Amino acid sequence: MWRRCSESEMVVGSRGEWVVNPPRPPSMLRQVLDNIKHTLLPHPHPNTFSSLKNQPFSKQLSALFHHLFPILASLHNYNAQKLKCDFMAGLTLAIFAIPQCMGNATLAQLSPEYGLYTGIVPPLIYSMLASSREIVIGPGSVDSLLLSSMIQTLKVPINDSISYTKIVFTVTFFAGIFQLAFGLFRFGFLVEYLSQATIVGFLAAAAVGIGLQQLRGLFGIVNFTNKSDLFSVVKAVWIALKNQSAWHPYNFVIGFSFLCFILFTRFLGKRNKKLLWLSHVSPLLSIIVSSVIVYKINLHKHHMKDYRVEVLGPIKGGSLNPSSVKQLTFDGKVVGHLIRIGFTIAIISLTGSIAVARSFASLKGHKIDPNREVVSLGIMNVVGSMTSCYVASGSLSRTAVNYNAGSETMVSNIVMALTVLMSLKFLTGLLYFTPKAILAAIIVSAVPGLIDLNKASQIWKVDKMDFLACSGAFLGVLFASAEIGLAIGMGISFAKIIISSIQPAIAVIGRLPGTDDFGDVQQYPMAVNIPGVLIVSLKSAWLCFANANLVEERIERWVINEKSMDAKGGQRPFVHVIIDASSLTNIDTAGIASLVELNNNLTSRGVKLAIANPRWHVIHKLRLANFVSKIGGRVFLSVGEAVDACLGPKMVAV
Amino acid sequence: MWRRCSESEMVVGSRGEWVVNPPRPPSMLRQVLDNIKHTLLPHPHPNTFSSLKNQPFSKQLSALFHHLFPILASLHNYNAQKLKCDFMAGLTLAIFAIPQCMGNATLAQLSPEYGLYTGIVPPLIYSMLASSREIVIGPGSVDSLLLSSMIQTLKVPINDSISYTKIVFTVTFFAGIFQLAFGLFRFGFLVEYLSQATIVGFLAAAAVGIGLQQLRGLFGIVNFTNKSDLFSVVKAVWIALKNQSAWHPYNFVIGFSFLCFILFTRFLGKRNKKLLWLSHVSPLLSIIVSSVIVYKINLHKHHMKDYRVEVLGPIKGGSLNPSSVKQLTFDGKVVGHLIRIGFTIAIISLTGSIAVARSFASLKGHKIDPNREVVSLGIMNVVGSMTSCYVASGSLSRTAVNYNAGSETMVSNIVMALTVLMSLKFLTGLLYFTPKAILAAIIVSAVPGLIDLNKASQIWKVDKMDFLACSGAFLGVLFASAEIGLAIGMGISFAKIIISSIQPAIAVIGRLPGTDDFGDVQQYPMAVNIPGVLIVSLKSAWLCFANANLVEERIERWVINEKSMDAKGGQRPFVHVIIDASSLTNIDTAGIASLVELNNNLTSRGVKLAIANPRWHVIHKLRLANFVSKIGGRVFLSVGEAVDACLGPKMVAV
Repeated sequence: MWRRCSESEMVVGSRGEWVVNPPRPPSMLRQVLDNIKHTLLPHPHPNTFSSLKNQPFSKQLSALFHHLFPILASLHNYNAQKLKCDFMAGLTLAIFAIPQCMGNATLAQLSPEYGLYTGIVPPLIYSMLASSREIVIGPGSVDSLLLSSMIQTLKVPINDSISYTKIVFTVTFFAGIFQLAFGLFRFGFLVEYLSQATIVGFLAAAAVGIGLQQLRGLFGIVNFTNKSDLFSVVKAVWIALKNQSAWHPYNFVIGFSFLCFILFTRFLGKRNKKLLWLSHVSPLLSIIVSSVIVYKINLHKHHMKDYRVEVLGPIKGGSLNPSSVKQLTFDGKVVGHLIRIGFTIAIISLTGSIAVARSFASLKGHKIDPNREVVSLGIMNVVGSMTSCYVASGSLSRTAVNYNAGSETMVSNIVMALTVLMSLKFLTGLLYFTPKAILAAIIVSAVPGLIDLNKASQIWKVDKMDFLACSGAFLGVLFASAEIGLAIGMGISFAKIIISSIQPAIAVIGRLPGTDDFGDVQQYPMAVNIPGVLIVSLKSAWLCFANANLVEERIERWVINEKSMDAKGGQRPFVHVIIDASSLTNIDTAGIASLVELNNNLTSRGVKLAIANPRWHVIHKLRLANFVSKIGGRVFLSVGEAVDACLGPKMVAV
Repeated sequence: MWRRCSESEMVVGSRGEWVVNPPRPPSMLRQVLDNIKHTLLPHPHPNTFSSLKNQPFSKQLSALFHHLFPILASLHNYNAQKLKCDFMAGLTLAIFAIPQCMGNATLAQLSPEYGLYTGIVPPLIYSMLASSREIVIGPGSVDSLLLSSMIQTLKVPINDSISYTKIVFTVTFFAGIFQLAFGLFRFGFLVEYLSQATIVGFLAAAAVGIGLQQLRGLFGIVNFTNKSDLFSVVKAVWIALKNQSAWHPYNFVIGFSFLCFILFTRFLGKRNKKLLWLSHVSPLLSIIVSSVIVYKINLHKHHMKDYRVEVLGPIKGGSLNPSSVKQLTFDGKVVGHLIRIGFTIAIISLTGSIAVARSFASLKGHKIDPNREVVSLGIMNVVGSMTSCYVASGSLSRTAVNYNAGSETMVSNIVMALTVLMSLKFLTGLLYFTPKAILAAIIVSAVPGLIDLNKASQIWKVDKMDFLACSGAFLGVLFASAEIGLAIGMGISFAKIIISSIQPAIAVIGRLPGTDDFGDVQQYPMAVNIPGVLIVSLKSAWLCFANANLVEERIERWVINEKSMDAKGGQRPFVHVIIDASSLTNIDTAGIASLVELNNNLTSRGVKLAIANPRWHVIHKLRLANFVSKIGGRVFLSVGEAVDACLGPKMVAV
């Protein structure tokens, strides 16, 4: 407990001086620039090159290589045991990834082999460059859907699949360039501006879109819409199902059976950890089994057209990724749109990748360098766009598989990439007979993983405004487009910040019994009022043009309409108003004008105004505006001192 | 000075309970709704009708009339002395207002008599309804310019001045309806969202626009651009001046001479208060003298076309405002645009009027009711649109004249309106010969009053970001359009709030010598560090998705790179980190996640984290997320208690 000791007024006087005469604070512009500098400039680590200046050249070179390729560091104490772990994890990953790669490629409206290509080069490059040790790289379902739906909205005549593929490579190129730039200029923090609530809503809506798009493959519908919003897809499915000849029931039978099989194995894997491998193998197993069935009973050439099953057909394969440098198109008519699409995809795919890398690194107790990850993603996509790959990113589901399969380093990514390469060489014969419905079933089976109802309900519990941002993003993506949905989510997230920063609310505060601390009487119901003194704290961070008049009105109304309670339960009017300014980050000219007006109005009622604990910028501006002398120097270090001054035999002027 | 007394741990324990177990705070949505309710709902005043319930009917009726027409209250103790003051002020006002009304009408590209009409009906209506006692109503130069420039951008064929006039009346009607609605729904606070910085920039650019537009009249240019942006106007003037036949030098001679005369009289008035009347009279004097000159020497019909002076020509007059009800057009093709223009003009003219009313009310110690003012402006403009008036608002320059002329009540407005009415009846013959260049000179002479360089330099001094908003609005209006300029200004103003609310900056705080208070060591250089304890306060109001990771990184970097100073000057590493959360208004899930990660990382370095003085919502969310138990209950009422707990012989867990 604190006990008040007698003190000379001089001491309070000099303390008042401390408050009223602080050093000149940095301007807001200066602060912003400082913040940018702190965020953007690299921070020297103890083991930088500078410490190597006097070392022999070979050591410097080795340090450089280690800096450029962090994988070398993890290979230092690499051994057979670790290799075995990585090898097994890589094989599991490949079995899991091959069907996903092909499925995601069809989601991006590309031929399946491009998915496999994207499962080879990007992971190889990324595993050399990145600081993460867990993330698995490949084509992602959200990126794929976004890519196709955004390119569809371009008003460019896309005559054939070749020109479409060209556009995809060019977008991938731009996305990579943007990512590279973000990383080099250390703008990796930009991905922070997509709040988690927005991401949850966005992913859920994207998952619904992905599921809906797969109805085409699952039902074998011939004429389907290119749009990805809810209305168009439901309408297209409805029209097709009404018209018997527009869809092929055998597709549905095959697709649906294997979908059930995949979901069942996943259910088994969740119930019994020993059967987890089954859920990893089941997609590839489904492809092999279904392809063999189609091949054996010739379903793809059934004599009745209605019973025919759509298969993938001829797939270019048998060699490493072909070069696609010449396919990049920088046609003046569309290049602007492609840059815009590339920008959006770069941001979306970064957000997911960084989040995945960060969560698994913290699971294992590593630390990643976001800017380094962003640079690696950028280089990988730029090179990818020249080697027949489309946008690749870190995949949550595959990273989880990698983690569970016990991988130790990024070598598992390399093993996976080489396995996919082999499959491309030897499996293309089999893939000819793979029913399209199976790929659709594999993609659909991934949809539930993207809809995080738990997180959504948690957001609802903790913050209703965040839930609004989440639902806004969800509905925006579902009914309009990905960009609109993201814009809605970000808009609501920032509006929330603005609203709470400028809300014109005040809290009445009182003394906490047994202490000299003061607190909000609503937060601390045991706090006691001080008779005749109204102490208010602002709930906003700014007193500015947007709330100053309203705050002033509320304080005045409180002074006029309410009475303070006596110790004996009697009422007496307020004679002092103390504003606890400690929560106030800043003030503007309108805020100062309101304080002046408040002081005039209170003075005319015989009420004295005092300010307690103003922060640096606030007291500086109040002094510039001569407000301190206007309230007779009643500015105090803390609410406690202000109360003492109010209750004391005479006013202690500063 | 405070002295620490011995205390039982139980007490600290129970105080910790206070912090950790507050009542459930209202949700943010609840808070927003409460704030809206407080802002929108009327607040009962002591003298409402309810107190009259048991009074006779006649008294109730009288109270109702007094409520509807506040002017009745000021007439209660009206006497001959006050009437004399008001009468003289009204006459002065009329002499000052007649030329301004005509000039502003030409600025709005209307025939001058509409300016005079707008100087009659709106002031009469407003003086009956409003709570202000000083404001003078009439056509404003900014509204006029805005009106013409916004209507010009409509892609509607405006064949003749009659259809243009119809559009102006309809826009006036919609502006009035919007103002009425704002007032009735108590949205008067909406005008707060235009920050002062934005208004200063906007007015300055509008003034430049007004000045440029007047070059047409001043030079007598025949073919002029309809656009109001800088490039177009300068280009049009340049083209005209190069082409000798496109402008009439005599116009310039006459206009420029009288402009000099008006500016000279104003200069005299400023130097010598006794000559102030001269500056009020000079515009009307200029009109009369120049018209007489033109009439006498027949300049308007000069035999050489080059020397001809453009005059106003025939003016409809001689009667009261004609009805314009039938001229309101609600054509489906344009009505949407007209509503949009009406909305912008309603906001702009409200902002100016309320600011003028408020500043002069506070000069005289009155209090105005913004919502009542807004309703009155709305009614006045709706009625005005049906009686051949265009948008009227409160005029700063005329209100200042009114104030200086010693008016007592709104009766001066009535006297002014009746005088304008008389002039309309008897002066129209004279106005035929008034050179257009004189009206241009009168408008140009008003331009310097709108460019407030003092205020701009004050804004620059106090807040650089505000100055950015000011310049943004200025340049936006000058080079693009009024709406874009306002949007830029508002955007920067709100961005400023966001930036400072989420800036990832931390302040290190220390104990202020001789007290138990703590403060920012930069703000209070005399503050002393506590060895081994790092106390940081967040400079932002939110710890959320946009700054949480960066704040976490900074605290970690500080703990790693800095050492605390011993009393003996030795260095020792930090073993405690206390976060002073008192400035934190709120936190979101990303913020909590970062605190968890920070705690994990600090714990792995053997550093203990504590939280001091969390606000209501913050501690509530931290508890929901189980964070309090994760940091071992180290949550304290104040920084002082947290420090005691850190330095004490053992950790006092809550």
